[in-house]
Amino acid sequence: MTTNRGVAYVRQGVVEVRSIPFPKLEDPRGRRIGHGVILKVVTTNICGSDQHMVRGRTTASEGLILGHEITGEVIEAGPDVETLQVGDLVSVPFNVACGRCRTCKEQHTGVCLTVNPARAGGAYGYVDMGDWVGGQAEYVMVPYADFNLLKFPDRDQAMAKIRDLTCLSDILPTGYHGAVTAGVGPGSTVYVAGAGPVGLAAAASARLLGAAVVIIGDVNPARLQHPRALGYETADLSRDAPLADQIAAILGTPEVDCAIDAVGFEARGHGHEGAQHEAPATVLNSLMEVTREAGRIGIPGLYVTEDPGGVDSAAKKGALSIRLGLGWAKSHSFFTGQTPVMKYNRALMQAILWDRINIAETVGVELIGLDEATRGYAEFDAGAPKKFVIDPHGMVKRAA
Amino acid sequence: MTTNRGVAYVRQGVVEVRSIPFPKLEDPRGRRIGHGVILKVVTTNICGSDQHMVRGRTTASEGLILGHEITGEVIEAGPDVETLQVGDLVSVPFNVACGRCRTCKEQHTGVCLTVNPARAGGAYGYVDMGDWVGGQAEYVMVPYADFNLLKFPDRDQAMAKIRDLTCLSDILPTGYHGAVTAGVGPGSTVYVAGAGPVGLAAAASARLLGAAVVIIGDVNPARLQHPRALGYETADLSRDAPLADQIAAILGTPEVDCAIDAVGFEARGHGHEGAQHEAPATVLNSLMEVTREAGRIGIPGLYVTEDPGGVDSAAKKGALSIRLGLGWAKSHSFFTGQTPVMKYNRALMQAILWDRINIAETVGVELIGLDEATRGYAEFDAGAPKKFVIDPHGMVKRAA
Amino acid sequence: MTTNRGVAYVRQGVVEVRSIPFPKLEDPRGRRIGHGVILKVVTTNICGSDQHMVRGRTTASEGLILGHEITGEVIEAGPDVETLQVGDLVSVPFNVACGRCRTCKEQHTGVCLTVNPARAGGAYGYVDMGDWVGGQAEYVMVPYADFNLLKFPDRDQAMAKIRDLTCLSDILPTGYHGAVTAGVGPGSTVYVAGAGPVGLAAAASARLLGAAVVIIGDVNPARLQHPRALGYETADLSRDAPLADQIAAILGTPEVDCAIDAVGFEARGHGHEGAQHEAPATVLNSLMEVTREAGRIGIPGLYVTEDPGGVDSAAKKGALSIRLGLGWAKSHSFFTGQTPVMKYNRALMQAILWDRINIAETVGVELIGLDEATRGYAEFDAGAPKKFVIDPHGMVKRAA
Amino acid sequence: MTTNRGVAYVRQGVVEVRSIPFPKLEDPRGRRIGHGVILKVVTTNICGSDQHMVRGRTTASEGLILGHEITGEVIEAGPDVETLQVGDLVSVPFNVACGRCRTCKEQHTGVCLTVNPARAGGAYGYVDMGDWVGGQAEYVMVPYADFNLLKFPDRDQAMAKIRDLTCLSDILPTGYHGAVTAGVGPGSTVYVAGAGPVGLAAAASARLLGAAVVIIGDVNPARLQHPRALGYETADLSRDAPLADQIAAILGTPEVDCAIDAVGFEARGHGHEGAQHEAPATVLNSLMEVTREAGRIGIPGLYVTEDPGGVDSAAKKGALSIRLGLGWAKSHSFFTGQTPVMKYNRALMQAILWDRINIAETVGVELIGLDEATRGYAEFDAGAPKKFVIDPHGMVKRAA
Repeated sequence: MTTNRGVAYVRQGVVEVRSIPFPKLEDPRGRRIGHGVILKVVTTNICGSDQHMVRGRTTASEGLILGHEITGEVIEAGPDVETLQVGDLVSVPFNVACGRCRTCKEQHTGVCLTVNPARAGGAYGYVDMGDWVGGQAEYVMVPYADFNLLKFPDRDQAMAKIRDLTCLSDILPTGYHGAVTAGVGPGSTVYVAGAGPVGLAAAASARLLGAAVVIIGDVNPARLQHPRALGYETADLSRDAPLADQIAAILGTPEVDCAIDAVGFEARGHGHEGAQHEAPATVLNSLMEVTREAGRIGIPGLYVTEDPGGVDSAAKKGALSIRLGLGWAKSHSFFTGQTPVMKYNRALMQAILWDRINIAETVGVELIGLDEATRGYAEFDAGAPKKFVIDPHGMVKRAA
Repeated sequence: MTTNRGVAYVRQGVVEVRSIPFPKLEDPRGRRIGHGVILKVVTTNICGSDQHMVRGRTTASEGLILGHEITGEVIEAGPDVETLQVGDLVSVPFNVACGRCRTCKEQHTGVCLTVNPARAGGAYGYVDMGDWVGGQAEYVMVPYADFNLLKFPDRDQAMAKIRDLTCLSDILPTGYHGAVTAGVGPGSTVYVAGAGPVGLAAAASARLLGAAVVIIGDVNPARLQHPRALGYETADLSRDAPLADQIAAILGTPEVDCAIDAVGFEARGHGHEGAQHEAPATVLNSLMEVTREAGRIGIPGLYVTEDPGGVDSAAKKGALSIRLGLGWAKSHSFFTGQTPVMKYNRALMQAILWDRINIAETVGVELIGLDEATRGYAEFDAGAPKKFVIDPHGMVKRAA
Repeated sequence: MTTNRGVAYVRQGVVEVRSIPFPKLEDPRGRRIGHGVILKVVTTNICGSDQHMVRGRTTASEGLILGHEITGEVIEAGPDVETLQVGDLVSVPFNVACGRCRTCKEQHTGVCLTVNPARAGGAYGYVDMGDWVGGQAEYVMVPYADFNLLKFPDRDQAMAKIRDLTCLSDILPTGYHGAVTAGVGPGSTVYVAGAGPVGLAAAASARLLGAAVVIIGDVNPARLQHPRALGYETADLSRDAPLADQIAAILGTPEVDCAIDAVGFEARGHGHEGAQHEAPATVLNSLMEVTREAGRIGIPGLYVTEDPGGVDSAAKKGALSIRLGLGWAKSHSFFTGQTPVMKYNRALMQAILWDRINIAETVGVELIGLDEATRGYAEFDAGAPKKFVIDPHGMVKRAA
Repeated sequence: MTTNRGVAYVRQGVVEVRSIPFPKLEDPRGRRIGHGVILKVVTTNICGSDQHMVRGRTTASEGLILGHEITGEVIEAGPDVETLQVGDLVSVPFNVACGRCRTCKEQHTGVCLTVNPARAGGAYGYVDMGDWVGGQAEYVMVPYADFNLLKFPDRDQAMAKIRDLTCLSDILPTGYHGAVTAGVGPGSTVYVAGAGPVGLAAAASARLLGAAVVIIGDVNPARLQHPRALGYETADLSRDAPLADQIAAILGTPEVDCAIDAVGFEARGHGHEGAQHEAPATVLNSLMEVTREAGRIGIPGLYVTEDPGGVDSAAKKGALSIRLGLGWAKSHSFFTGQTPVMKYNRALMQAILWDRINIAETVGVELIGLDEATRGYAEFDAGAPKKFVIDPHGMVKRAA
């Protein structure tokens, strides 16, 4: 096991699978880390935020190895690792976190203070997130392994549900974080903006949390078919009917209890015309309109500090024209930021293992080989209503 | 509409249906109340806590009109009533609450400070709870109607689901309060002590809240058949196998995340021998044993300050021999008291109306006429796994 | 007692004291309300949000009687009032709230659904807030009196502390709400934007909540002298030194744990040049910069849905150019809206009565007669570091 | 630095200072630990729970080195330690915690699942808590140092306040945990049972949290003099006047908002006669009596699973005759367990460094040398109203 291959970002619109070094128990600054493990990657998913890089809307460098959604098998453990054994199957939260700083101790592992010299918060395979090598590869190194990794209790049981469990590294906790911060609970009426994988995960999470009804909106009507088939209500934002009216037609009232922004800064406008153009404040402004008094708005969708591809000078520096007075008049609260995966992944694993949530079916998991990664990126970028999951060693295929 | 009939407590073991006065907009102290309404009772349920009185374990007086689980139709409203109209269908929380005192303003309507001169907390048709006339009757008066009543949004929809909605007045919120205070959420493993209606409602609530698995225990194995058929796990406490072992056989570990005491002070011991005798501290002591570190124990089951029928002098004054050190060593917390129904009933109504919970099926609702109330009391006391719901005007029967 | 006088808004920049009708137990729609009381006004304060109207930045009509910060004595009670007696001294929350709707029951009395036909939330003497007559007058009517009013336990004790207790109707709870929503607790480092009365109340609240250190910033250095004399740290935003640097000079780090926006939409820019001009997004953008990872930002400062006097077309419709990506990268959360006074006023009253907070001294209470109201408005508008409290009957003066 | 001396438990009533091994970077099972540090002990306090062992009420073995309240200077760090340097001054939480298990990740470091093979929860120098060598010594080893230790930001500032900072390892967070779990906040009325160091720390914490008034009760009137001099209210439980009456005389009502049990299982009865005898359920039963409806009861006082010295057979197995019905009727909740120090110590350090709490003065810190430890134990056991702090190297004395 001394060779390795991974998915590299080449330039705008181009990724490729190439040979890369076999991981060492070393951090990106070259310091030896006894608390790390080497994983054989079992599954690793392509994520919408990978697309931000591939679309060229970041400053990612040539050769960056992608992949922050990782599930693996421990094949080597550093001397400081105490709770994991070679052979354990584990889920890797996309946040790299030290477990030793103030924010980690407070469960805010999305803004760990030590793993990224540039700013708070680290991730695997992501620009500006601390230079941790990505996991769309055969092998990957995970630091602070005892703290970061979630061990599956039983290997066979885990392999049998691996298509669902692979969603624990990012997408399911991220959707769930949106739902939890939006205050979703039993009986809630919920609106989710965005029918991509995070939006679908938010919808499934809202249902798990007991929501009475979940409405998913998108400017692309094709993406609404699958959730409608699964029993979710939908709002087609390419139509000129205002969102509030579409909600009223479902609920009898134009407002929901809880709203989730699963779109982020690359939002397009609403309506026939609007949906043709990027309009970054559209989602948040519409959520304030349709959320009830004293409601909460969860914002798992990504907003950035710099956006070279922004529609205007304000957008380029991450500024949005937000009608804050609208939310203020209704006493709204707003919750932003990277999801602290560790806060949720154990509970969500239990929900999967006891058959309480079918996340793979909801988000449309499709397994592909490592050599098919390029195709996966292209299809996902073209809007395929699928969640591509790479099976680099064919382990899942063989287990099935 | 000037005649009325209701279920009266006569003496230990005896209830009867008798003519009673038609309700007036007056409180039990004879003061006129403009904020009250008169309800035509649509449904009214027999509750386990009614049985405490009928079994003679309280100081209830001859002639007390029973019934605190009430659903009705507004037929008259006082001059201060602003949000309700004649014809509205409403659920009545069993707590009588003023909405104006410190505890009501803080949502603790179970311990309203003004509606009961004797102590905090009022209820309809219950000894020591403020002398409010009970609702196992054709008509009943509800004070502070704008504050207390939950209006169903649509009359026809409500009648179609009335067997579920009738559970909103007490049993479903009470089970739910147990689950919420026990900290149940997505992925939780839950143990519910007691397979009576409150225990079953707690189990259904835990499922609605996203629990991974719910285990229901009882000393009467006959009561476990129905929940098992509904997919709940069970623990037969008449067996000599310790509860922790029965849990371990299901979960692979002898502890659960969350525990709910749906039994209260009339608990019997565990095991072949134990189950023959009342042993009031058994449930709480066993819950500390099987609840994980830092877990929470919800106690919706009733504990009393005085129990004339208690097994010994300590029990007679409500004192239990609790192994508090056991819970202390595990950092447990404990939550007691009457459920503040209003905190939960709106959300639970939504869950019912959107088909997220089948509470009537879970607790075994059986509709009976007012003249069958005596039989209902007798069968329920004998352990019938049913929830008897009185339909005093035959409205439900006719609507079906 | 059939005459009455009050402070009327006349036109931009002009208020006057005039004769007005003696209040009746009637709502603004002319409906008789048995739940109301008539108060003899003991004190009534001039508020910064009154100034929004007087400066002509709203659509307030000629003749609107101002005043939403009211403390009074009950002189008449409607037939539905149960807990108050003639002679009781009471504090009036500025929010008019019914205590019967969904949001009131959930303690969100700032967005009551019934007292204002136009939108959620009511207030006395304020444009678009339901047409309730203001209390800068000799007498005023308060509806839903049992629910809304906070009774002082002892009349003499209350009169002795009336300069502090008069702050319970708005300013102290509003500052406190900012601090609570910002997550202030023992040991917190806190930054408060704005040294007006709400900012000072937020600072005093933060201290009461146990904050380690509170820094108050303002573009007007004159307003910083008083808080500095009371032991608060300050940041002079008319200087060109960036706020983060000024904070670092005090704390040794450029970030605080908690931030409070006590300025709102009429913000001016920072620095020598910036402070000359209105720049509505300045405060929020700077708070995201100086608040630590996972921190919370409390926003008691008012943001409006329409601002005829806004600096540009975006501002006129209440839209601000917010760098949301900045907050998102740090996992910030944001809390807006009218303060639900009732959630806090009882606790704050206790803190005053037991000498735990000197709010009158902190905000610079100055008593004036009703006929001096015009002068009070003018001096306050000119930036006097005072909180003007009208004593319409001379009761406070006589008691002193 | 290869010699070491520490305070050893010898037998009931006897401790002695003896030579002990210099600590190694090894856990009690002899496994090398790269995450540990060796501390030169700056201060180490004698605690009431040490007295449980010395009084012979546990199964502590001869030779156990005592001391779980430790402040120290890092003199050696293992290879896995990343955030600490030799020379750093640090506070050691009394809980030994791994930072890697489920309960640690949830901030429940008082019930760490891995540091004690016998049960959840570890501590230094304590029977049944994992065999970690105590810190009433010259040198001590701390495992998982990055996770466990709280570094003081400035060495000189820390030495200047070391008498206060030494309280961060246990007593101040423990009292604070009692106050927080009891729901203390601004304006609260609070009753603290027990005027020992934990009770005084709870009282000081309640004040820091903004409590309106704090009443401290004890059966030993001599212990009430000091808190009374510091402005706390007191209740003398050796008097026959019921506690509720003593509270009513202070507050005008016989109930408080929040109650804290800082006594635990070695409680004595109330009143002239009662105070002569141990009566383990007295405190909890009295707290239910004097706590208001929906109030919370924080229980930092220790309750044990086995008590060889208990007054009767029930007490010997840790069972107490608790009037649970009393609390149930008032909807009380109860919070038990070892304090998770790490949850609070950073905030409390800030409160100390910014002069918001004088904990050393409140609890009566008295510095002694290591060779005076025997005297300290004896005086503390005899009821001296002091907190003895050992200064084993004379560092504090020299710094002063």
